[in-house]
Amino acid sequence: MKYERTHGGDWAGFALAHGRPPLDFSANISPLGVPTGVQETLREAAGQVDRYPDPLCRELRAALSEYEGVLAEHILCGNGAADLIFRAVMTRRPHRALVTAPTFAEYETALETVGCAVEHFLLKAENGFALDKGFLDAIMPETDMVFLCEPNNPTGVTTDTALLTRILERCRETGTLLVLDECFGDFLDAPEAHTRKADLAEFPNLLLLKAFTKLYAMAGVRLGYALCADKDFLERMRGAGQPWAVSSLAQAAGAAALRETEYVRQVREVTAAERAWLIQQLTGLGLRVIPGEANYLLFRSPRSLTEPLERQGILLRNCGNYVGLDETWYRTAVRTRTDNQRLIESLEEVLR
Amino acid sequence: MKYERTHGGDWAGFALAHGRPPLDFSANISPLGVPTGVQETLREAAGQVDRYPDPLCRELRAALSEYEGVLAEHILCGNGAADLIFRAVMTRRPHRALVTAPTFAEYETALETVGCAVEHFLLKAENGFALDKGFLDAIMPETDMVFLCEPNNPTGVTTDTALLTRILERCRETGTLLVLDECFGDFLDAPEAHTRKADLAEFPNLLLLKAFTKLYAMAGVRLGYALCADKDFLERMRGAGQPWAVSSLAQAAGAAALRETEYVRQVREVTAAERAWLIQQLTGLGLRVIPGEANYLLFRSPRSLTEPLERQGILLRNCGNYVGLDETWYRTAVRTRTDNQRLIESLEEVLR
Repeated sequence: MKYERTHGGDWAGFALAHGRPPLDFSANISPLGVPTGVQETLREAAGQVDRYPDPLCRELRAALSEYEGVLAEHILCGNGAADLIFRAVMTRRPHRALVTAPTFAEYETALETVGCAVEHFLLKAENGFALDKGFLDAIMPETDMVFLCEPNNPTGVTTDTALLTRILERCRETGTLLVLDECFGDFLDAPEAHTRKADLAEFPNLLLLKAFTKLYAMAGVRLGYALCADKDFLERMRGAGQPWAVSSLAQAAGAAALRETEYVRQVREVTAAERAWLIQQLTGLGLRVIPGEANYLLFRSPRSLTEPLERQGILLRNCGNYVGLDETWYRTAVRTRTDNQRLIESLEEVLR
Repeated sequence: MKYERTHGGDWAGFALAHGRPPLDFSANISPLGVPTGVQETLREAAGQVDRYPDPLCRELRAALSEYEGVLAEHILCGNGAADLIFRAVMTRRPHRALVTAPTFAEYETALETVGCAVEHFLLKAENGFALDKGFLDAIMPETDMVFLCEPNNPTGVTTDTALLTRILERCRETGTLLVLDECFGDFLDAPEAHTRKADLAEFPNLLLLKAFTKLYAMAGVRLGYALCADKDFLERMRGAGQPWAVSSLAQAAGAAALRETEYVRQVREVTAAERAWLIQQLTGLGLRVIPGEANYLLFRSPRSLTEPLERQGILLRNCGNYVGLDETWYRTAVRTRTDNQRLIESLEEVLR
């Protein structure tokens, strides 16, 4: 395999194929680069990596506890949120699981490793890929596990709060573990209004996922965390893989990132403004754009874009390998105005 | 859980409990600190961690291929060797496995996550914990997987080369996957004479494990690799967990480490000299020392050492939780003369 198109973000494969790194719209990451404080912390930590990382991530969990307002014992850190997806599946060992389609592919990949039967709840383009009440009926007593991504990847769409509450209740009734992936939640206009972290105590079958990857542009560091009031379940998740999953560099960088409040303010401001601009521009090109609320946008193109854009040095995420989408759909990251302008100009040229 | 004594190297727990970091003899890591070139590379890489890591670790695998003389397609990188232990188990899904006792505990921990029945082949203190021919008979057609650590952790003992060859052959006959953990192989006086990497093509059921953790003092970075001629198996191992297991920091640091030939020469020189000195000194204190060949030594003490040494700021590895050992056994890392002298002086005081 010389080129990995399963997910976005394969800049290394692009660079090998094209002799230069891409302008990468295929990975949904803050366009403002690594926060200065995080870079400094990584540089300082470089001399101490001879020590094993703290397997319990004690300092980082204390900082996260303060930041999230969640008990430290309800927090488990992982080697990126993807690590925690696999650990949750290996711990729960579901026979039957429910995922939406389209959504982040790693849920299903992880479920397949334990031989789980995966049911897809199809989100329809004609409904703007919004989740509807039918989802409640799809959660049955036999459903061991449900994955829900809020806002959803790759659509950027969120679920109505009242419906989300009913999904939480339904999962509690049926004894279903609900993994609520809030990895892109901080890009919403009102993150606090949408996160369910205040409901953890009431719903011990709720596992929230968050990551430093996107908001803090730390994809290369690998750091995510799970929030859950079921301490035993978290402890078993910790035992479902190696004890030193989170590097000491990641632990130090994570604690530093939580102090980057000004950086976060800027990322959120840029994202909100540029998302609106990109929706307008893409729509202006005659493309159908799903009005996503995160730092990426799903749109449909009448023409194939991958090859022509790659020739212009731009990497876009074709969504042909998402269940529920086809090759006509693309996901683009929301980047800075300069970058976005280059994307729009390239698209204009290709679509002309 | 406030203190993790399952493995060595819990300096963070020690620091929390004692208000200062320990002089750590509990983790088997090069005492020369992080190589300068690795530190520099980590500092340079800090600004680019906004990119996802290359899921295929293409550059690092090319460097490893050159370094090990093994085809790049026969190399899989992981988030430390421990990550690869879990992936190997999840891929093979053994019903029955054979491990020596004592040995590194993560083999059994990983095997337990898939509900595997684990048979222990007891290494006897009276034989200096050496493996004998009886091990061949313990490998049966029902044995799906065998773990062998060369040199063994925590004993430092290696297996006779002719016997190792017969074990390889036996495993090939019985269709058993042999995981040969050579993570401490580079500390042997003649690593090239003991490694089986030249046998990979002949034994596609052989999976070698190596790590940057110990030799390059990179425990906090998390980087290990597996060598195996069965490409399909490696590819399935890659799919048995998240795609971005190896951080971009680890990938860059690993490639830099492979250029640190002078550092490696020094580590090996210090280890050889200090190992001999420590054996002499510990024996001189009336302790029974197993003549290990790696960068750590197993010894027996008539008195409990953990608490008294901790009061002196020294962290030692009690071996009470190893199958096949008891609380009277300890493992100490081989460090620099200054450190080793402090250990010996403290032991003198405690044992007096």
